[in-house]
Amino acid sequence: MRDDTVVAYLDGNSLGRPLVASVDRVSEFMTAQWGGRLIRGWSGGAVGEEGWLDLGQRIGDDLGRVVLGAAPGQTTIGDSTTVLLYKLVRAAVELRPGRTELVIDRDNFPTDRYVLEGIAAERGLTVRWVETDAAAGVTAEALAEHLSLSTALVVLSHVSYRSGFLADVHALTTLTHDAGALIVWDLCHSAGVVATELDACGVDFAVGCTYKYLNGGPGSPAFAYVRAEHLADFRQPIQGWLGSARPFEMGQGYEPAKGIRRLLSGTPPVIGMLAMRDMIALIESVGIDAVRAKSVALTEHAIALVDALLPDAGLASPRDPARRGSHITIDHDGFEAVMPELWRRGIIPDFRRPNGIRLGLSPLSTSFAEVSLGVAAIAELVAVTPAA
Amino acid sequence: MRDDTVVAYLDGNSLGRPLVASVDRVSEFMTAQWGGRLIRGWSGGAVGEEGWLDLGQRIGDDLGRVVLGAAPGQTTIGDSTTVLLYKLVRAAVELRPGRTELVIDRDNFPTDRYVLEGIAAERGLTVRWVETDAAAGVTAEALAEHLSLSTALVVLSHVSYRSGFLADVHALTTLTHDAGALIVWDLCHSAGVVATELDACGVDFAVGCTYKYLNGGPGSPAFAYVRAEHLADFRQPIQGWLGSARPFEMGQGYEPAKGIRRLLSGTPPVIGMLAMRDMIALIESVGIDAVRAKSVALTEHAIALVDALLPDAGLASPRDPARRGSHITIDHDGFEAVMPELWRRGIIPDFRRPNGIRLGLSPLSTSFAEVSLGVAAIAELVAVTPAA
Repeated sequence: MRDDTVVAYLDGNSLGRPLVASVDRVSEFMTAQWGGRLIRGWSGGAVGEEGWLDLGQRIGDDLGRVVLGAAPGQTTIGDSTTVLLYKLVRAAVELRPGRTELVIDRDNFPTDRYVLEGIAAERGLTVRWVETDAAAGVTAEALAEHLSLSTALVVLSHVSYRSGFLADVHALTTLTHDAGALIVWDLCHSAGVVATELDACGVDFAVGCTYKYLNGGPGSPAFAYVRAEHLADFRQPIQGWLGSARPFEMGQGYEPAKGIRRLLSGTPPVIGMLAMRDMIALIESVGIDAVRAKSVALTEHAIALVDALLPDAGLASPRDPARRGSHITIDHDGFEAVMPELWRRGIIPDFRRPNGIRLGLSPLSTSFAEVSLGVAAIAELVAVTPAA
Repeated sequence: MRDDTVVAYLDGNSLGRPLVASVDRVSEFMTAQWGGRLIRGWSGGAVGEEGWLDLGQRIGDDLGRVVLGAAPGQTTIGDSTTVLLYKLVRAAVELRPGRTELVIDRDNFPTDRYVLEGIAAERGLTVRWVETDAAAGVTAEALAEHLSLSTALVVLSHVSYRSGFLADVHALTTLTHDAGALIVWDLCHSAGVVATELDACGVDFAVGCTYKYLNGGPGSPAFAYVRAEHLADFRQPIQGWLGSARPFEMGQGYEPAKGIRRLLSGTPPVIGMLAMRDMIALIESVGIDAVRAKSVALTEHAIALVDALLPDAGLASPRDPARRGSHITIDHDGFEAVMPELWRRGIIPDFRRPNGIRLGLSPLSTSFAEVSLGVAAIAELVAVTPAA
């Protein structure tokens, strides 16, 4: 979808645009499926028709195949990222009894830090903080200092929400396992734009949102991955009927479902999970490697423009494209003051306090011309606007 | 929305129909708001435009005014019913330190029981079970037996999911408070069809889903109410950035937001919460008392038909309309065998194992003629179909 008032949309990592196909898909769902199938839609019913009840697991399998490098049966769409992260961390801690430390980096996204601090407080555990140079990200050396036989769990982001630093999933997962600990990867800023090999890297758990590069729409539900070998012993704390073994028995006593469905709690958020299907299909049709290639070209283009037009701005993101996701952050004390005028002109990047502009470049909907227009406008306005 | 293949939709208490206005609302949101406002939509931006970020609280206030008897600032739309119930119960337990017992009835909905059992196990608490005659529901006498100075919390359903029994919120809340305990009311089967006076009854907490009589669509997010006097001390365990005091500071250390927003964890499920607005507006335009009056007339009509046409079926619901919600359950060993043919004929009630048919009568979309057709078809098929 395009809107004429939007000249350069540089915030695809906060909220991806709706695909035209998604507008049709949701409309069709409202009338023909919800309105037409009514309650029968939960189980399918008509020949060739999908039931809504296991839609999250079907989309999860698609996402696993196209983007995550995950075999079927390990991924589902569920609650918000925060709630799924809470479930994964609580479950992971139970899988490492006697270990008392949770490791996370200080620059991780607030939700990741807040969830971990809350669980540490309630379970009598200790949080160990990896202090990082934001642009350098979490290195193996920095993580190794905090790992020991006391480590239960490590929580890291694949791509840093601010700097765009792209972590080495394989190396850091292996390092964590060498200490006998488990790892949760937060894929919010990488899912759909960087190929991930969760199965091959031995990742234990992963979580991510779907409204950025997966174009699921405002507040679309998140996904989570639980490695097959953990599923039998995986117990999450929010015991609801749709995560139980036999929901429609309405029986006494909770028994978790077999497989990934035990991660669920309540009724699946069906309408909210429809739109992401179109983006997953589109990524599959072009291939995640082509998506990644354009992503790298876009961020290279943006950095070259910043170097040329905004020489006073600091680049708070890695210069090495192999260590960078699909957004860059640039810092300048004049940025806060220019944001209202940028938005008025239809040039829409993201502002991150205290002084960062984040350019999120969604490969399948951001053009090189948009990036050029956007950076030029920022440079022009910074030159003429007094700092706030 | 009507579908020609649906002759009698008698399951409005499982999934309400989409309003025509909701189809337009969601479509407009996809193109003009998501597609047009993009990331700017979170904060509003254009004159007269609502921001998405506090949409849950705005809808919560509407719901409070129209249906719940709740003043503004105490209700929000959030996660699934199960997740919200988990948060409420965890928070409530913390407000009654030293008290060790949680009280719930054996006939409560599975999620309510499973959530409570899980929390009891993890917090070292004991669940006390109120055993009820399903059709009689939870009486004051039955509850009183389980209340003591050890009681931290009572969890009850306003309308029983199976029998339709309508509990006395005021009396049971007062009884609970007399023991110094707190109460959570589950309004899943009453919200939108029975007026509730949460403020006036002194209710501490409430939760409910929005896809039944509030017509929010498959898996639309649930609502929760936290009484104003509890908000300052209310702490829920899933600490996410959107429940924090200053989300966009991205700061270190979780500090809960003031007011009902502290109940939130992740990004609000915006698309999922759009459709319910139309039903809330429709209920406001006709008045909840008129909705309740038609609801009573519909269940009276259904019971009269059952008495006349299905004399061998048992009525598992109260005969007193003052003690009944908007659905009735009838039992007969022949019901399971007739369900496939009923569905094929476009007559859609709900089957509840082992032998119950539940007729959910949504006052603003179910006609008396539909009820007549439906019960007549059930009676006709039971007479000619061998039991399964």
